[in-house]
Amino acid sequence: MDEKERLAVEKEIEQRAREIEEILRSYLPAEEGCQRTVIEAMRYSILSGGKRLRPMLMQETYKLCGGTGESVRPFMAAMEMIHTYSLVHDDLPAMDNDEYRRGRKTTHVVYGEGMAVLAGDGLLNYAFETALKVFDNCEVDGIPLTERYRAGIRALSVLAGKAGIYGMIGGQTADLEAEAGQPDSEQLLFIHEHKTAALIEASMMIGAILAGADEAVIKAVEECASHIGIAFQIQDDILDVSGDEAALGKPVGSDEKNCKQTYVTVCGLEKAAEEVRIRSRKALDILKGLPGDSAFLQRLTEYLIYRDR
Amino acid sequence: MDEKERLAVEKEIEQRAREIEEILRSYLPAEEGCQRTVIEAMRYSILSGGKRLRPMLMQETYKLCGGTGESVRPFMAAMEMIHTYSLVHDDLPAMDNDEYRRGRKTTHVVYGEGMAVLAGDGLLNYAFETALKVFDNCEVDGIPLTERYRAGIRALSVLAGKAGIYGMIGGQTADLEAEAGQPDSEQLLFIHEHKTAALIEASMMIGAILAGADEAVIKAVEECASHIGIAFQIQDDILDVSGDEAALGKPVGSDEKNCKQTYVTVCGLEKAAEEVRIRSRKALDILKGLPGDSAFLQRLTEYLIYRDR
Repeated sequence: MDEKERLAVEKEIEQRAREIEEILRSYLPAEEGCQRTVIEAMRYSILSGGKRLRPMLMQETYKLCGGTGESVRPFMAAMEMIHTYSLVHDDLPAMDNDEYRRGRKTTHVVYGEGMAVLAGDGLLNYAFETALKVFDNCEVDGIPLTERYRAGIRALSVLAGKAGIYGMIGGQTADLEAEAGQPDSEQLLFIHEHKTAALIEASMMIGAILAGADEAVIKAVEECASHIGIAFQIQDDILDVSGDEAALGKPVGSDEKNCKQTYVTVCGLEKAAEEVRIRSRKALDILKGLPGDSAFLQRLTEYLIYRDR
Repeated sequence: MDEKERLAVEKEIEQRAREIEEILRSYLPAEEGCQRTVIEAMRYSILSGGKRLRPMLMQETYKLCGGTGESVRPFMAAMEMIHTYSLVHDDLPAMDNDEYRRGRKTTHVVYGEGMAVLAGDGLLNYAFETALKVFDNCEVDGIPLTERYRAGIRALSVLAGKAGIYGMIGGQTADLEAEAGQPDSEQLLFIHEHKTAALIEASMMIGAILAGADEAVIKAVEECASHIGIAFQIQDDILDVSGDEAALGKPVGSDEKNCKQTYVTVCGLEKAAEEVRIRSRKALDILKGLPGDSAFLQRLTEYLIYRDR
């Protein structure tokens, strides 16, 4: 991908992110009532100008698999709520103790630690409340009711499973414990697969499930997402060593400063870069093998993996 | 209720609690894998000898409404997981900063703050994973599939709604903010209705919904549960002032020591006791008016409200 192509994809992604932000806003609770402070903290956390990659991957996979309705929307919002709650709790003093994220003060710095715990809990819980909206008006279109129920329930199960102790929370647990020790490359792979890749897998799988894709496609999409997620995380580790501070908008070398073991510190820069290349090639091969037009998903994947920021 | 009756009910409740504990254990994750520490912390938190009142009320309401199957079980376990996660996060230094609960060290004291945050998140997320098991083997019995899906989805929505920002988390938010101010009786009622009563409402409503009760019964059960929950919480405040330390197993006067405003400190002991009497009478009247044998639920309600510990 040359510089001109990269800029074109970037522009395309920014446009989609703005559209997704509108969908997201339509599902957020209003700042009112005796609980308004926690709602303010939830909105502050989620409306922070993220790239909205997970809902974007979900929506694109839904379209790739032939989905044309709006049933994916509540799940797009739910996915971003779960991603956001994990960041709010990760930033707490008891976890990573980060005071800034994307150039803004983190939630606990603005609202206090107790309210940040509640805002994270509120986002996780509200994610399920939001995803359940997939069943609203379930009976108005032409698709058989039982099939719609089945797809919605399966999408909910994938969301909950990939976000929980056998998915993202499992990765966070291993990550928290790794800080005290010397993780090897196997443990680091477990962390990346769970902490980062699990939600990306869920995003693409839910897109496929809600579009009515068959088992082989759902399986292929899960594998593709796993490669994307792991490559994405290793590239993050590479950028922390060799990235450009101005482009990244954050200081490089923070992993070394925090004595954090990463794929780069454990396996070296060269092997890490090779791993990214292998995984991105596998992800692209899977996308090319799927029925339907995956051109944008391919561009998005390349952009995500080879980004310089 | 005289002393002899009270002891008989207590014995009955203990027996049911043991049966519920077995159901709960059958839904807990095994302590294995790279995420075993968070699972240990989750199990430590939930297997702490609680009274299991919420799943008990759910199961009894289910039976009262004619339920005879096992679909209520995953929801009983899910409800106790949600109740437990709220205690784990409430006990954190950033919230109530409690080092002991039911005579045992709290989760963050044993596992560290970061792991306690993750254990709470893990329990909340696993509650939804567990409740979703209601759809396993949905197609094996004689009830029409669409009806089973509908009841399961509605039960999930009630669980999520009553646990979230418009339910329990809303109450926790108001409670956290009340600590810094002087709440009036209206704000205290909001806190009790949401922080305590919401999960009790969800418990009884889910029992009724899964048993296939009609709208009028579901509505009556919600109102009954609201009275029980609020009376239960006010009785808690009364016991903190006038209870017997030996019977309670914890020091009395902790609210005053922590400058915590309660129904008793704001309205006085007499008005608080009167409120408990009024609400328990209303709850019992509703139970007596329902079709079916509510004798045990009535005894349980009286016991809960007029307990001395």
